[in-house]
Amino acid sequence: MGFSRISILGVGLLGGSIGLALHQRAKGARIIGYGHRRETLDRAMQLGAIDEAHDDPAGAVREADLVILCTPVGTFPELLRRMSPALARGAIVTDVGSTKRSVVELAEALLPPTVHFVGSHPMAGSEKRGVEVARADLFDNALCITSPTGQTDPDGLERVEQFWKQLGMRITRLSPMNHDRLLAQVSHLPHALAAALVAMQPSEALALAGKGFMDATRIAAGDAGLWRDIFLDNRDQLEQAVNQLRHQLDEFAALLDPARADDLTTWLAAAARKREQLAP
Amino acid sequence: MGFSRISILGVGLLGGSIGLALHQRAKGARIIGYGHRRETLDRAMQLGAIDEAHDDPAGAVREADLVILCTPVGTFPELLRRMSPALARGAIVTDVGSTKRSVVELAEALLPPTVHFVGSHPMAGSEKRGVEVARADLFDNALCITSPTGQTDPDGLERVEQFWKQLGMRITRLSPMNHDRLLAQVSHLPHALAAALVAMQPSEALALAGKGFMDATRIAAGDAGLWRDIFLDNRDQLEQAVNQLRHQLDEFAALLDPARADDLTTWLAAAARKREQLAP
Repeated sequence: MGFSRISILGVGLLGGSIGLALHQRAKGARIIGYGHRRETLDRAMQLGAIDEAHDDPAGAVREADLVILCTPVGTFPELLRRMSPALARGAIVTDVGSTKRSVVELAEALLPPTVHFVGSHPMAGSEKRGVEVARADLFDNALCITSPTGQTDPDGLERVEQFWKQLGMRITRLSPMNHDRLLAQVSHLPHALAAALVAMQPSEALALAGKGFMDATRIAAGDAGLWRDIFLDNRDQLEQAVNQLRHQLDEFAALLDPARADDLTTWLAAAARKREQLAP
Repeated sequence: MGFSRISILGVGLLGGSIGLALHQRAKGARIIGYGHRRETLDRAMQLGAIDEAHDDPAGAVREADLVILCTPVGTFPELLRRMSPALARGAIVTDVGSTKRSVVELAEALLPPTVHFVGSHPMAGSEKRGVEVARADLFDNALCITSPTGQTDPDGLERVEQFWKQLGMRITRLSPMNHDRLLAQVSHLPHALAAALVAMQPSEALALAGKGFMDATRIAAGDAGLWRDIFLDNRDQLEQAVNQLRHQLDEFAALLDPARADDLTTWLAAAARKREQLAP
């Protein structure tokens, strides 16, 4: 694979799963973990996700040839500032953040010119969090979006994509802007909607919730701090996605008229067909 | 159980599953199926969901002591008219419709005074349809709402509730109005939202859809004709639920402001906690 010392900054669900997967698939590599809570680091060591634990980002990245930011995106500015002086010349830095414009801009501004940054978004996760739910197969067959810019080193990009492939992922390249626009539509808005759908229910309605409601709102149980960071970071695109949905709802509400029954059927059938064409 | 000849009008997923469950749990009873397509009836016979097949509702209900309407609610008026003359004195009629005000009103108006109608809504189903996906355990541990009115015969209500319990269901009683109001919020709106969420996505966004999007939109693949009937029948309550969601979205959009980060966290955390308290 070409990386021998890999630093994982943040050993929660994603960071922990990367460590577990590497121990299975990249036996030579040494995995270094950083976390700000001692218990999390201890647990990550016990579970075999990391080989070495640091509670200081600079110590964790020293001599690493690959550094992966796995903390919530809101913590990236401080993390990048603290680790930068300790980065080895030629090190490659990537991340697992759910937004890409601000992350890439920040990393390109704060990291020294002697290292290469490649933005990544491995689309794997769960509404659960923490190293306890980490799994070596979390990334199998999931999609990883890489977001190169004009400044991205082509060789670094290639190596980062190889890294995710080794963990079982498929790769799609998107500019940071396209990433954030499309993810606002297909990921951030659905999360906000699920939360709104739960928030509006009185308890007498929740008592009647069936499988459909459970499926539709499962993501609403996600970590509030993590999603706050994503939403605020991508708020311009998310606002646009919310407006697109408002237009769809207006269109739908206009179809709630017996005189337009055929149009309502057409609208519902088109959505059903579109959904059926995706995986279950 | 007390019913010896049970007519199932409409042998799709729900009707077929009732037949399969009865064959397991009410061995003495004879199960009569009505459908307007010969192939469906043949398939229901082959799968062991029914003992006898009719393509005429009157023939199917003759001498039955329990009749269950399992076709889409939009077909109920015609079905009730056609079967009414053939109903035995003292027969109990119930249904599996997803709306209750119009169904109960219609049944109480159209059925002869010699039979008892009890509105039911067994909350089991799937985005798939047809007798092919019917299962004897479809109702296990799911909720069935019965919707008695001032005209409902107490003994008939009791017997219908016992019937659903025998199929493994839990029972909740709600007035037709409360049923329709709460179901608009917790079932009909989520379905409309899932369809809107799918409808607004460009294909480049759908290509990035992950597990969260799949879960959130699974119900959008439901049958268009079935949901059109439900939506039009319950449109006043659904419009109110859409408006409640619009208010939630406005509230959410107002929180997309770094100055209100704490309020956004509070809003998300409240929704996450509320969702976590439900089953997974």
